Amino acid sequence: MVQACAVGQLTAMTVQTMTMDDIRDLAQQLRIDSIRCSTSAGSGHPTSSMSAADLMAVLLTRHFRYDWQHPKDPANDHLIFSKGHASPLLYSMFKAAGVVSDDELVNTYRRFGSTLEGHPTPLLPWVDVATGSLGQGLPDGVGVALAGRYLDDLPYRIWVLCGDSELAEGSVWEAFDKAVYYHLSNMTVIVDVNRLGQSGPTELGWDMDAYVARVGGFGCEPILIDGHDLGQIDEAMARAATSDRPAVILARTRKGRGFSEVEDREDWHGKPLPAEMAERAIVELGGERHVTVTGTRPQPGKPRQRPDGEVSLPRYEVGAKVATRLAFGQALAAVGARSRVVALDGEVGNSTHLEEFAKAHPERYFEMFIAEQQLIAAAVGLSVRGYVPFAGTFAAFFSRAFDFIRMSGISAANIRLCGSHAGVEIGADGPSQMGLEDLAMFRTVHGSTVLYPSDATSTASLVRAMADRTGVVYMRTTRGAYPVIYGPDEQFPIGGAKVVRSSNDDRVTLIGAGVTLHNCLAAADELAGRGIPARVVDLYSLCPIDTQTLLAAAAATGDRIVVVEDHYPAGGIGSAVLEAFSDAGHPVAIKHLAVRGLPGSGTPAELMRAAGISADEIVRAASETAGA
Amino acid sequence: MVQACAVGQLTAMTVQTMTMDDIRDLAQQLRIDSIRCSTSAGSGHPTSSMSAADLMAVLLTRHFRYDWQHPKDPANDHLIFSKGHASPLLYSMFKAAGVVSDDELVNTYRRFGSTLEGHPTPLLPWVDVATGSLGQGLPDGVGVALAGRYLDDLPYRIWVLCGDSELAEGSVWEAFDKAVYYHLSNMTVIVDVNRLGQSGPTELGWDMDAYVARVGGFGCEPILIDGHDLGQIDEAMARAATSDRPAVILARTRKGRGFSEVEDREDWHGKPLPAEMAERAIVELGGERHVTVTGTRPQPGKPRQRPDGEVSLPRYEVGAKVATRLAFGQALAAVGARSRVVALDGEVGNSTHLEEFAKAHPERYFEMFIAEQQLIAAAVGLSVRGYVPFAGTFAAFFSRAFDFIRMSGISAANIRLCGSHAGVEIGADGPSQMGLEDLAMFRTVHGSTVLYPSDATSTASLVRAMADRTGVVYMRTTRGAYPVIYGPDEQFPIGGAKVVRSSNDDRVTLIGAGVTLHNCLAAADELAGRGIPARVVDLYSLCPIDTQTLLAAAAATGDRIVVVEDHYPAGGIGSAVLEAFSDAGHPVAIKHLAVRGLPGSGTPAELMRAAGISADEIVRAASETAGA
Repeated sequence: MVQACAVGQLTAMTVQTMTMDDIRDLAQQLRIDSIRCSTSAGSGHPTSSMSAADLMAVLLTRHFRYDWQHPKDPANDHLIFSKGHASPLLYSMFKAAGVVSDDELVNTYRRFGSTLEGHPTPLLPWVDVATGSLGQGLPDGVGVALAGRYLDDLPYRIWVLCGDSELAEGSVWEAFDKAVYYHLSNMTVIVDVNRLGQSGPTELGWDMDAYVARVGGFGCEPILIDGHDLGQIDEAMARAATSDRPAVILARTRKGRGFSEVEDREDWHGKPLPAEMAERAIVELGGERHVTVTGTRPQPGKPRQRPDGEVSLPRYEVGAKVATRLAFGQALAAVGARSRVVALDGEVGNSTHLEEFAKAHPERYFEMFIAEQQLIAAAVGLSVRGYVPFAGTFAAFFSRAFDFIRMSGISAANIRLCGSHAGVEIGADGPSQMGLEDLAMFRTVHGSTVLYPSDATSTASLVRAMADRTGVVYMRTTRGAYPVIYGPDEQFPIGGAKVVRSSNDDRVTLIGAGVTLHNCLAAADELAGRGIPARVVDLYSLCPIDTQTLLAAAAATGDRIVVVEDHYPAGGIGSAVLEAFSDAGHPVAIKHLAVRGLPGSGTPAELMRAAGISADEIVRAASETAGA
Repeated sequence: MVQACAVGQLTAMTVQTMTMDDIRDLAQQLRIDSIRCSTSAGSGHPTSSMSAADLMAVLLTRHFRYDWQHPKDPANDHLIFSKGHASPLLYSMFKAAGVVSDDELVNTYRRFGSTLEGHPTPLLPWVDVATGSLGQGLPDGVGVALAGRYLDDLPYRIWVLCGDSELAEGSVWEAFDKAVYYHLSNMTVIVDVNRLGQSGPTELGWDMDAYVARVGGFGCEPILIDGHDLGQIDEAMARAATSDRPAVILARTRKGRGFSEVEDREDWHGKPLPAEMAERAIVELGGERHVTVTGTRPQPGKPRQRPDGEVSLPRYEVGAKVATRLAFGQALAAVGARSRVVALDGEVGNSTHLEEFAKAHPERYFEMFIAEQQLIAAAVGLSVRGYVPFAGTFAAFFSRAFDFIRMSGISAANIRLCGSHAGVEIGADGPSQMGLEDLAMFRTVHGSTVLYPSDATSTASLVRAMADRTGVVYMRTTRGAYPVIYGPDEQFPIGGAKVVRSSNDDRVTLIGAGVTLHNCLAAADELAGRGIPARVVDLYSLCPIDTQTLLAAAAATGDRIVVVEDHYPAGGIGSAVLEAFSDAGHPVAIKHLAVRGLPGSGTPAELMRAAGISADEIVRAASETAGA
């Protein structure tokens, strides 16, 4: 195993001239660099990198088709480190590819301000998605592979390196399932089965038969190899590329491979080698070297272009009763005239009305079935390829994918999500189906936009705006049909709010969004009859929020404000309003009507009344607030 | 299929006297009642109930050992409808068991105030956990089965009815994986493969071979049957009960079975039959009947009792540097003297320090590996059996299980969760590992408690309090070691806060929790030197929150308040404080220091400085706020 060959003087090699010995040397370099950068940083995962170094050396030199000088070349293959903690290995590959200098690798890894972060993020142009929360890179890869096969019509391949620990995540099996369903033979998964997790042996250890049975049982092609046998690796990658199924290379490896003091030893997860150990390791690995490799470039190719049509939004008559979820579907079908818009469904398209898009643009509609994590990940993967994905399910079920949504924020992915059936307003189905925390959840996401329109016109307008918005963009829609409030030419800028009703004598402001805006309007009617004129604000954009409109309403109504939301009290509309006032230095005590108990079944009216967010409750709260 | 036998007059049968014909009649009754209740309610899922009626009729009469009059009998079997939308079937079983009247079933199902909700919840004494978000009942069942096999030492069996659609959820595969790993042959899973999902055919349709390959590949025993052949069902359930592996009965069924107008037809998911169709269906199914069945009672048995020891909490010296995550582990090991306390790890026990419990009480420690959904579900299942589960992982990774946590709130499960490595304070690992939304997430959960102690003493005290607290109880701990602030006898009631520093001249209040409290204290030192005395509040209990202490601090410092949190700005500590002030009718504009950008890698100090939550930033903000 010890290789004392003097390759340190080598500087650049082309794939054509590389022998297996050269590749072996490169693998040692990857190990050495993984050790060097993590030891220098004082943290990181060298041993998890060393186990996969042979795999990546063969990939980089013989199978990965990538123009390192042009990472945006649409014909490039994609490489996703689902085991993001093996970032030393990934960055060492970047050094070997000549795009990161040795100095940058060794002296900036994991340092403040460096793009060589502890776990990869797309701040690096060769990284598609942020990883580090296990079991996400693979599902993201499924999304990229969907784009390749069904939209781009390009032969690029998606290579995903997984750890063995992460195969305990259900999301990995959602990904295998969808890879098979969608015949994603353009994706090759490489599992680094090094047997050791963070705190001890993995669940399955080196029971390779168990991995074969599971992966094969799901319909992928399992390819079992010794992950340190370069010939076997090479053959497996070649075979994977010609398989008609998604291939999964199950590589039996040894954690810390190549340094006898740590190889296959427990208690070396996530620990850099102390300096003197690192020195011994480098000697054992044959000494520091600095080979750079010019890999194989892809065949030139352009993604299939489809013509864009004219977006003609649906128009709704004021007063007509239209559910915002229906308007969402209809508007999205219209926005689908733009050829890069795609839609993904969590097998509830007939509820969310995403099916309207499916009818209009079936070739850009992906049914992800009841697998919300994969739903989000596929959207992320499609956004990597520059598509404009919209994904839909019930508002409640986005909570299933919160970790994926959180990571989308870190990836700076551009994804648009629509959650229907929010709040107690859904009625008889009961609390399991009620999104009562979605607004709070999405508000936390880095760079997110949170929208909650009240009528069909504003919904349609905002759907169009979502397509052009970057980051994680969420829209909440309502199950029931309520009157259209706005004329078809009204504008709804993201970050705005509408004063729906006002007079010079307003004594209280009612703030609602979605269904509660209608309750606020009904309450305002009742209050007017009682001689308490009320201003009504439609807070259709929760994040960003229209602080100016809030301040103006507060000023006009003596800081008497009622906020009504079909959501649990913490973190939702009430919090957003309070934060806005506080940030503006103008604190206001709101009367906050929200869902405070655990709802059950019932009619929407019964449940809204019980939760204290109906028009009657608003009237009572507003009267009290107005001192009437 | 049409059965016109006049069984309407039958009222009660014992299992011993029931023939297969009687069971067939019972199955028809279950179908008829599923139709009747959903038609009467005007919503619900009769067709999804009808496909599984034969399965449940055989189970109820021949295999389920349950004392219906004593649902708390610890020897009872457990039945979990993972396909919670088949609630009409479940409630029809309750009627057949004689515990729900026909009137209640037909006239209250899905109505306001009824416990017969759209999806089952434990408001009903025969229901263990709330279901309705697919793919959760099975993982919950794994938790119950863990209790049966490893803690109670009782032979009760866990029966889980799954739909086929939900097998697309990764969480189902986490559950199969853990069922095999823990040899849970005391659990039988029944999959109702009726081929039709909500919006069309399921992914695998009736490809039973694919199901067998997947389930078998994971190591369960797949048992393939015709789900309408009572003999096959009976045999399969008997075989499952003697298997040495978790058995999965894969029952090929027809949605809407028994009524020719809907059987195996699309577009009948989640739709009640219109009244006239229901009438025809009932005729075709042989007419309304009201059989009650006295099922098999369990063999009497008591859970194994273990002696409780004395809880002797660790004591820490003021000023010693101890990470709260370590204090958590040490305190939990101490609280483990109580024999019903159990711990569950997401394969990071050496980071969360849950391993301290593992060392002390290995027989009550369950390694769930990297599968956070199953981690939470196992805790829920253990709480069903009256255990006191604590589950731990990184704060960020609880977001992976948010839907499970949300449903735990609906189940009113008593689970205690600890998230370590929160915020930018973790340093070099980068944002994927930083919990920056956990406080907001947990604050939304119905009935939740959210704790965030700053030192080892308060951590230990609160860990003890967590054991006695109901609902979802979350504690956030910190990676780094910071000085112990409190003497070992200080009390930390949940819902309290501590004024750590105060004088009569305080000009500003600094509110922190966890690591930011230490930053606040350092800032207060600096501010004191500048002649700006500052009050410092340790907001260790975020939910419930100590409004009185907040009001007193505001009053003492002229409403000049700085809130500092190592968390994204929305929904966290700042929001909780603003909500408290608003609810108290005393609005305050806080100076809110939180993590507003996307952090990268770096040292804790660098990252806290960059996020604007370091002592220096606090000094600046406080000086500004105090007008100095």
